[in-house]
Amino acid sequence: MPSSTSVSVFGASGYAGALAAALLQRHPRFELRTITSRSDVGRRLDELYPRHRVPLEMVELDLDRHGDVDAAIVAYPHHAAAPVVAGLRERGVRVIDLSADFRLTDLPTYEQWYGPHAAPQLFGSAAYGLPELGYRERIAEADVVANPGCFPTAALLGLAPLARAGLVDDVVIDAKTGVSGAGRAATEKTHFVTVDENVAAYGLAGHRHAPEIDQELAVLGAEVTVTFVPHLLPLDQGELISAYVRPSRDVTEQELLDLYAEHYAGERFVELTGASPGVRDVRETNIARIKVTRDARSGRVLVFAAIDNLWKGTSSQAVQNLNLMFGYDEAEGLS
Amino acid sequence: MPSSTSVSVFGASGYAGALAAALLQRHPRFELRTITSRSDVGRRLDELYPRHRVPLEMVELDLDRHGDVDAAIVAYPHHAAAPVVAGLRERGVRVIDLSADFRLTDLPTYEQWYGPHAAPQLFGSAAYGLPELGYRERIAEADVVANPGCFPTAALLGLAPLARAGLVDDVVIDAKTGVSGAGRAATEKTHFVTVDENVAAYGLAGHRHAPEIDQELAVLGAEVTVTFVPHLLPLDQGELISAYVRPSRDVTEQELLDLYAEHYAGERFVELTGASPGVRDVRETNIARIKVTRDARSGRVLVFAAIDNLWKGTSSQAVQNLNLMFGYDEAEGLS
Amino acid sequence: MPSSTSVSVFGASGYAGALAAALLQRHPRFELRTITSRSDVGRRLDELYPRHRVPLEMVELDLDRHGDVDAAIVAYPHHAAAPVVAGLRERGVRVIDLSADFRLTDLPTYEQWYGPHAAPQLFGSAAYGLPELGYRERIAEADVVANPGCFPTAALLGLAPLARAGLVDDVVIDAKTGVSGAGRAATEKTHFVTVDENVAAYGLAGHRHAPEIDQELAVLGAEVTVTFVPHLLPLDQGELISAYVRPSRDVTEQELLDLYAEHYAGERFVELTGASPGVRDVRETNIARIKVTRDARSGRVLVFAAIDNLWKGTSSQAVQNLNLMFGYDEAEGLS
Amino acid sequence: MPSSTSVSVFGASGYAGALAAALLQRHPRFELRTITSRSDVGRRLDELYPRHRVPLEMVELDLDRHGDVDAAIVAYPHHAAAPVVAGLRERGVRVIDLSADFRLTDLPTYEQWYGPHAAPQLFGSAAYGLPELGYRERIAEADVVANPGCFPTAALLGLAPLARAGLVDDVVIDAKTGVSGAGRAATEKTHFVTVDENVAAYGLAGHRHAPEIDQELAVLGAEVTVTFVPHLLPLDQGELISAYVRPSRDVTEQELLDLYAEHYAGERFVELTGASPGVRDVRETNIARIKVTRDARSGRVLVFAAIDNLWKGTSSQAVQNLNLMFGYDEAEGLS
Repeated sequence: MPSSTSVSVFGASGYAGALAAALLQRHPRFELRTITSRSDVGRRLDELYPRHRVPLEMVELDLDRHGDVDAAIVAYPHHAAAPVVAGLRERGVRVIDLSADFRLTDLPTYEQWYGPHAAPQLFGSAAYGLPELGYRERIAEADVVANPGCFPTAALLGLAPLARAGLVDDVVIDAKTGVSGAGRAATEKTHFVTVDENVAAYGLAGHRHAPEIDQELAVLGAEVTVTFVPHLLPLDQGELISAYVRPSRDVTEQELLDLYAEHYAGERFVELTGASPGVRDVRETNIARIKVTRDARSGRVLVFAAIDNLWKGTSSQAVQNLNLMFGYDEAEGLS
Repeated sequence: MPSSTSVSVFGASGYAGALAAALLQRHPRFELRTITSRSDVGRRLDELYPRHRVPLEMVELDLDRHGDVDAAIVAYPHHAAAPVVAGLRERGVRVIDLSADFRLTDLPTYEQWYGPHAAPQLFGSAAYGLPELGYRERIAEADVVANPGCFPTAALLGLAPLARAGLVDDVVIDAKTGVSGAGRAATEKTHFVTVDENVAAYGLAGHRHAPEIDQELAVLGAEVTVTFVPHLLPLDQGELISAYVRPSRDVTEQELLDLYAEHYAGERFVELTGASPGVRDVRETNIARIKVTRDARSGRVLVFAAIDNLWKGTSSQAVQNLNLMFGYDEAEGLS
Repeated sequence: MPSSTSVSVFGASGYAGALAAALLQRHPRFELRTITSRSDVGRRLDELYPRHRVPLEMVELDLDRHGDVDAAIVAYPHHAAAPVVAGLRERGVRVIDLSADFRLTDLPTYEQWYGPHAAPQLFGSAAYGLPELGYRERIAEADVVANPGCFPTAALLGLAPLARAGLVDDVVIDAKTGVSGAGRAATEKTHFVTVDENVAAYGLAGHRHAPEIDQELAVLGAEVTVTFVPHLLPLDQGELISAYVRPSRDVTEQELLDLYAEHYAGERFVELTGASPGVRDVRETNIARIKVTRDARSGRVLVFAAIDNLWKGTSSQAVQNLNLMFGYDEAEGLS
Repeated sequence: MPSSTSVSVFGASGYAGALAAALLQRHPRFELRTITSRSDVGRRLDELYPRHRVPLEMVELDLDRHGDVDAAIVAYPHHAAAPVVAGLRERGVRVIDLSADFRLTDLPTYEQWYGPHAAPQLFGSAAYGLPELGYRERIAEADVVANPGCFPTAALLGLAPLARAGLVDDVVIDAKTGVSGAGRAATEKTHFVTVDENVAAYGLAGHRHAPEIDQELAVLGAEVTVTFVPHLLPLDQGELISAYVRPSRDVTEQELLDLYAEHYAGERFVELTGASPGVRDVRETNIARIKVTRDARSGRVLVFAAIDNLWKGTSSQAVQNLNLMFGYDEAEGLS
């Protein structure tokens, strides 16, 4: 085990890349080497994000110069990410990709939601970076880890015990997210006056995270087509999924509690809670806080899972995956 | 038709009563006579709520002195409301009751959720005060109008066309509400620091608005047990319900649009919208803004209905009902 | 007095123009004729701003076609406004200009802060549209009314009694504003994530509203150079100025209260309050809420004035001015 | 130097005590022994504050049982704190007192603002716990450290270089604070609906932090009576002071920058910034972020200082002081 692993963040000016850089800079095992940006070359990261206190200048990506690292986090949008990942792989760099380019395993599904893939030769080769879903060994050995979407992270952590137990007959996922999930781009949608004192659903024509959730639920044993609707809330970081599950057979409250307790025994980043989990409880942590209960009137199983969309939903999960890839303690630099 | 109708508000120091008083004070047809309070006797309402600009002093309720009005809005909590309503009825006053005491029509159901009823002789005699549900004539003739709960108002307006058309097989209602819905009481739950940057479900042991929704859906023709979960959001006024309906047969998007357009033709306080409705769009209005659509992946029907919980969800709806009771234009004083 | 006055709003897609259009559309005396936009031609205003419920389409400005109205509100940025105002004047239209182009009376000062003036022939000819400052007669007769800046409105209303009484020796104005004051443009500055849970000063190199405040304080009798610093707060509408006045002689609390009561006697849009005024108290009103007090420790006079920056700070003040210009009751359509 | 120092937090159920407990629990040098509460005996701290993740039960204070520690943080309100501090001192425990009981050095001033002192024998014996003000040595040797008020912390850090240089002739401090500064008590003032979309000044009859600021400015060499007005903002944590200084002689921008750079050279918890400091930049850090500039129009010196009121304003500053008292690195456990 090397005492220090060099890592670069490509695309550090967005919320996810910037946080990844900040987490790595103060990580005891990783040495943050280079941070790049497409929009803010020449600016220091602590000028854009004073709170992250990363006193590094962002440079333009040059794979020939920047490929000499042990690992990289690629924080580019989908389509833009795939070629960078491919270029890094050619240079032997192990990669965490924060985009959606390598999450799906069925190419037609990818193409339906995202269009043509920009590095099809690598498609299907990545490990799905949700350790708690049973992927730890694959992640540890992977050259490319596809970091999950924020909604799938919360949804899958919330539903995994039910799915594994064969209890999911049908599921509605009502998701609530803060504005940072929409990214740093200044648009009418992210304008303070649009969001403040407001709440509305979005993505009603279909959200790209739905097939990702379906895919992984199927791996867990639940072949369903989820109904998934995200809502934008007036808060910056945080994501809550409320899942309404029609169970395949009637279950008692105690069965549910036991099932979840057993499933998540030993997981350091999952908290089972009797109280209703709030996103405030997990703000700026790598923790998913989950409650399961039975609706006495309808018999439905209700699951609530709260995460910080930028942390466990994105960047701290990436660091957790990096830890696994390089043999460090999974929680190093995250607690 | 009298040119002016005298009306008092009993319980004016809470959010709902105060807003009712404000709406009535500037209403061209009603003369606001007396406002009472249990907690703030002797204080002026514009001291508690400067923005409402009602320069009246709140007095202690004395039915013998205050019963000499044409109408009253009772803004007391359940249990406390029923005896006041009864006392007013004995004096011939027509009443809008904002509490839950007269909304349900099945006494055992009431008792299960609220305990013993405090004026059982009147139970079942009220009109349900949601005009758009087909209750206009009953309201116009009623001596007591039970003003609906805020969640039922949004949920029923959103689901009525489907229910009437026999299309509701099963329904999940995920509700989001601002903090004013929790009332004026200062508690840990309503503390700014608790709510800010947070979202969480509540009422998971069962919420009293669920049987009210069931009851009225049944009247509309849908015998279902809804799964209903409210969530508290960091905003003051506004309520969005997201309803996930398993239709009894497959329906097309166009069928849904036609169904809703026809059902709500001529309704001045219902807006059908192609865009996803936000609570900001209806803030401080008597309007419900509704979108219906079909989830292409799952075939579910999705309905979103946004209201202002204090306006259409409570106090402006009460004024709409008062208008109907006294033969005024339904929209008088509300637009 | 005509029973109806035709009015158009040029530049209706910004916050100020849109609100002006909404206020005029429901005004009993004005007929809203045309609304224009530079960025959103062909879109309906109620699509951009559902809550305003103005079902009109925005068109491109064509003075030859749109100059046939009694009055116009020009809601363009400075520089862009002046030529439109000039064109309207050539066609005999009476104009309220919401920009800064005609507020200042000293051309060099204008040029220092805003650059060359685009219609110098009209410079200095406008009435300053703050009725409560003693400008009612000038406004009533004016062809062009320069609607005041939002900060000057609050600051001048707060300081006028002291200035008139010769009591202002020196003044610091610490202003706090909501995000709508920064306009509809989506920028990093107006991004929800930038503003949320934040407060910071801005405009430290000098803010254009400072010379406007100086100018009008001088008219009132106080020749001072104010120290003026605005701060951006996480709220949408609302503006509070906290003014710290070193009085020219010691004054008692009672003197101050009497001075303000006398000065503002009969003003319908000024509320003097014992409690500390909050912007919530004046949200969506044309009211300025003011408290004056003496700091017992330092002898300074403290003045707090709260307005809604989009209402009394901009658009409802424009309507108040229009009422004056056309001989209607000053409060018509505003309460 | 011992490898571990035992410490207890008395009054852990309030915001300040709870955060102090959380910081100490994860501190590498301190061992958190006991946490007490007056209102929540028997509850676990992670039940009240899930996000702090301190899995300890709060017990009732019993000095005989709980006095056997190296150090204690007393997080009681003024008056209640003094006797506990005295009791701890009798048992040889070194104390950080978060209350105002030992901050002032003039007893009549204390009595004027707080009433009779509850442990007068200790009055005047404490070190003022603002290390950056030149108090490091006194703190290191102190038995009792009076942790500064949150407003004085920001104000004094912002003004110290000017005061030391003899440049402060007169000063106005306009302070803006989030709601956590008002504490955990649920009142009308801290109700979400009161604070949301609002800003107002408070404490206009005189705020207790003003004499504390005066006292320390005098120590630094500036004998002034500050004008100090706090404002409540719709955010949870964060405090910004905007100070308007009339300098005793004219100074240039460059002089100011040099003065501050020199004064704060080597300070790890002070950041001088060219950009306007926002409270978001320092959220959940022990850092004060400061900008000084000269207002070109008025010649005033403007100083802006942002802190997190619960961190540098209270609890992390307490930990910084504890580090100094026990010979650890000042930043240990804080970065």
